Amino acid sequence: MRWPDRRLLDLLQVEHPIIQAPMGSCTTPEMVVAVAEAGGLGSFSTARTPANEIGEVVAAIRARTRKPINLNFFCHAEVKPDPIRDDAWRRRLARYYVELGVDAPGTSAIRDPFDAEMCDALVAAAPEIVSFHFGLPDASLVRRIKDAGCVLLSSATTVEEARWLEHHGVDAVIAQGAEAGGHRGMFLTTDVATQVGTLALVPQVVDAVEVPVIAAGGIADGRGIAAALALGASGVQCGTAYMFCPEATVSPVHRIALRAARDDSTAISSVFTGRPARSIANRLMRELGPHPDAVPQFPMASAAVRPLAQAAETKGSPDFTQLYAGQAVTLCRGA
Amino acid sequence: MRWPDRRLLDLLQVEHPIIQAPMGSCTTPEMVVAVAEAGGLGSFSTARTPANEIGEVVAAIRARTRKPINLNFFCHAEVKPDPIRDDAWRRRLARYYVELGVDAPGTSAIRDPFDAEMCDALVAAAPEIVSFHFGLPDASLVRRIKDAGCVLLSSATTVEEARWLEHHGVDAVIAQGAEAGGHRGMFLTTDVATQVGTLALVPQVVDAVEVPVIAAGGIADGRGIAAALALGASGVQCGTAYMFCPEATVSPVHRIALRAARDDSTAISSVFTGRPARSIANRLMRELGPHPDAVPQFPMASAAVRPLAQAAETKGSPDFTQLYAGQAVTLCRGA
Repeated sequence: MRWPDRRLLDLLQVEHPIIQAPMGSCTTPEMVVAVAEAGGLGSFSTARTPANEIGEVVAAIRARTRKPINLNFFCHAEVKPDPIRDDAWRRRLARYYVELGVDAPGTSAIRDPFDAEMCDALVAAAPEIVSFHFGLPDASLVRRIKDAGCVLLSSATTVEEARWLEHHGVDAVIAQGAEAGGHRGMFLTTDVATQVGTLALVPQVVDAVEVPVIAAGGIADGRGIAAALALGASGVQCGTAYMFCPEATVSPVHRIALRAARDDSTAISSVFTGRPARSIANRLMRELGPHPDAVPQFPMASAAVRPLAQAAETKGSPDFTQLYAGQAVTLCRGA
Repeated sequence: MRWPDRRLLDLLQVEHPIIQAPMGSCTTPEMVVAVAEAGGLGSFSTARTPANEIGEVVAAIRARTRKPINLNFFCHAEVKPDPIRDDAWRRRLARYYVELGVDAPGTSAIRDPFDAEMCDALVAAAPEIVSFHFGLPDASLVRRIKDAGCVLLSSATTVEEARWLEHHGVDAVIAQGAEAGGHRGMFLTTDVATQVGTLALVPQVVDAVEVPVIAAGGIADGRGIAAALALGASGVQCGTAYMFCPEATVSPVHRIALRAARDDSTAISSVFTGRPARSIANRLMRELGPHPDAVPQFPMASAAVRPLAQAAETKGSPDFTQLYAGQAVTLCRGA
């Protein structure tokens, strides 16, 4: 296989310019290994991995592949506890607790932002590539990661974000179009209504930055890859396609929803975590509206919704589960 | 120039698989002639042309080119007058009438849907190609148009709409991705939140229908055209790019907004006409929200907004003007 643009291949030291998106909900070490061994870039999301377990996960991957790997981190701003808004959110969900016969959770969990402790774990794990979502951490932490020799990636949803990332030191920009499943990487804007589709976003980002651009959002087969390269991207990042792989951990209700989804089954909503993310539209999204005022800041919304999702799933219902998927979902089902 | 896929070229009898989008607000006979003579398909929108003037417009175009041309029609459902909703809408705008010192208009105009009289004018004008927006007219009218030998096109915003159009007789489907400027062609759904980006929509439509697919939305230069063909489209339809041509009638405030717009400057809103359309976000969209409950059915909303737009424009303000643009707007400005 000969690729026309070697910039990303040389940067990442991979055979194919295809990045498996780091999906906190479904990526396993097995998936990372399989993608790496096939010549792509396997990515492990640390969204659900505490700092003190990162070394162990990376060791498990390293034991099975010598190829470069990508560790991905959320770098949202620190969130202060907000009991008033938290209470308002639980009141908003009160009728669902009653309906499903579950107790409202006491307080929402705080997910620490990317900090010095996480950075220590990262540097110790020494992944070849590090990617961030929601911008970049503090400049001092970025400096440590780059001094450790890691290639640095982050996602941009607008030209302005792409320019900001380049200015702050990324080695390549992931241009995340509005079609993408999962959390929007947006960090200089909160306006979901103006998020840009991949076909329009990629060439505008390519024109705006010098670093290689990775296209993401709506890409699930060779046609999408060819289109992304035609737009000027040096490679692609695919997510939803990998949710159909045997290495993915996808719950039964989610799997059923993925197999039934149509091109227009997904929407962007903040109800599950407090941040906009694309998933298959379901009852909670429809009944609360996509971005209710009461929803707490990321990731504080999650704790109050999780017991509902768990209770509903035991009855086979996807009504309260965040059913991550991108808009190219029907292309992912294969033969 | 050799194009890899000749299906659309043979169907439309044009040299290049590039359709100039029919834009009611800015397309002139001169633009249609220029595009046709350059080997593309020029399209004239009849959105602002009464049935009894269509023959004259087509004659003006025919006098200057022998190439095939496309006449475009809206085929929204008939709207009954709804004085209560109309009043609510004018009350919603009342503070703006006061601010700008204009009188609230008395009653909103009814724009007739595509009917037998319009069909008579169409058949008499005998365009080689006819395209519709918002679905298709009654089957009897579709039959007359096809019996007259016209090639029939219409826009789909979802796979379901594409299948419906093929089943109802179109010769090619325009897959209108969410990036597109102007009115969404949606007719089997009213849910803007689930509209699909071009990169994801095109291959899913290509997989779903037998007829050629024309990609639209976010395409403004050769990269977008190459990407669309890689996705399986047989051609493209471009709109915003033509708004920068000397043949376009674009008001001064609109022209300034187009030149200042960024990739994330546009949003989809119903406030100007009652139907969702993408335009550069401005004060009216921001203050009323994108889809206010009070907005009358298409096209009844327009009459109440128009005096505000006119008064503001005389002061050089774009606050109340529908500033049509797609998300690839920055690619259109050229050198």
